[in-house]
Amino acid sequence: MALSLLQSAVQSISSLPGIGERSAMRIVLFLLKQDPRMTSQLAETLQRVRTEIRFCSQCGALAAGELCEICLDTTRDPALICVVAEAADVLAIERSGALRGQYHVLGGLLSPLDGIGPDELRLTPLLQRLQQLDRAEVCIATNPTVEGDVTADWLQDQIRRLIPDTPVRITRIAHGIATGGEIEFADSQT
Amino acid sequence: MALSLLQSAVQSISSLPGIGERSAMRIVLFLLKQDPRMTSQLAETLQRVRTEIRFCSQCGALAAGELCEICLDTTRDPALICVVAEAADVLAIERSGALRGQYHVLGGLLSPLDGIGPDELRLTPLLQRLQQLDRAEVCIATNPTVEGDVTADWLQDQIRRLIPDTPVRITRIAHGIATGGEIEFADSQT
Repeated sequence: MALSLLQSAVQSISSLPGIGERSAMRIVLFLLKQDPRMTSQLAETLQRVRTEIRFCSQCGALAAGELCEICLDTTRDPALICVVAEAADVLAIERSGALRGQYHVLGGLLSPLDGIGPDELRLTPLLQRLQQLDRAEVCIATNPTVEGDVTADWLQDQIRRLIPDTPVRITRIAHGIATGGEIEFADSQT
Repeated sequence: MALSLLQSAVQSISSLPGIGERSAMRIVLFLLKQDPRMTSQLAETLQRVRTEIRFCSQCGALAAGELCEICLDTTRDPALICVVAEAADVLAIERSGALRGQYHVLGGLLSPLDGIGPDELRLTPLLQRLQQLDRAEVCIATNPTVEGDVTADWLQDQIRRLIPDTPVRITRIAHGIATGGEIEFADSQT
């Protein structure tokens, strides 16, 4: 009985991204050696996160209510929209404090091998937001990977084709040598 | 508010072994995208594991009650004790089905850099078990690493010195080329 409970725990934990069965077993043994309150707190926090945090219905970032704090912030420019792949990217850019506009989370990058096509990405809500503006600027902040580049090109094309009457200026975040990086290691792409 | 809850969740998850802050964030976002029942089940399983599974008071393996199923199994030879580092090793050896004796979990390996000295290992309960037997066989099944070898030598020495009157035959599991491995890749140690 203890063994089947253990196995179902290992199975539950290893269904999380980035955790295999061996790591799951290590986590279970770790929790068994710690104070039971650690496990209670972890379980409670997971439950609270799942019930209290959701995705903003406008931009797709993490939110406590219907809209996220950024979309509710009236001091931010709604005509400047930074498009990112995942909700975690919003947090990263917010930490830098560089954006005075708002965000739009696509929910992924085009990746046929992972089964992510145009229908899986949140394109329509973005087009609807843009159409409500007289003029807008979209800054595409996808990673400089193959998927990021392809998605950026596709997005630019879709905006031009599907809402041709809305004046949208499309830019992409600068890519180059990271601060602290060395020119020596830059490849021809950079 | 959503942000502080998110941060405390990331912190809780990244306190588990083998999970950093980035992986913790990925796990949170993954759970938010899944059915809420997945999170409930995970939280519940963690709680159940922590309350229903404990360490066997005799051998230190995982148990549902005071003693584990292996220590309670009267068909097993109590005079043949396989010494392992961690409770997970018991499960691995049991899967092989090769042992007809019982186990003793040391709770780690000697490792001064990690702060694990002789006092951190469950030596005394092992000596007490051995003293209750007329004669015994101890098979030391530690990994063939520096820590595993040092711990095996130390354990053998302690048994000989501290309970000299108990006839104990000490062996170590065979180390060599793993099944499926190739002789070509064997080093001089093997």
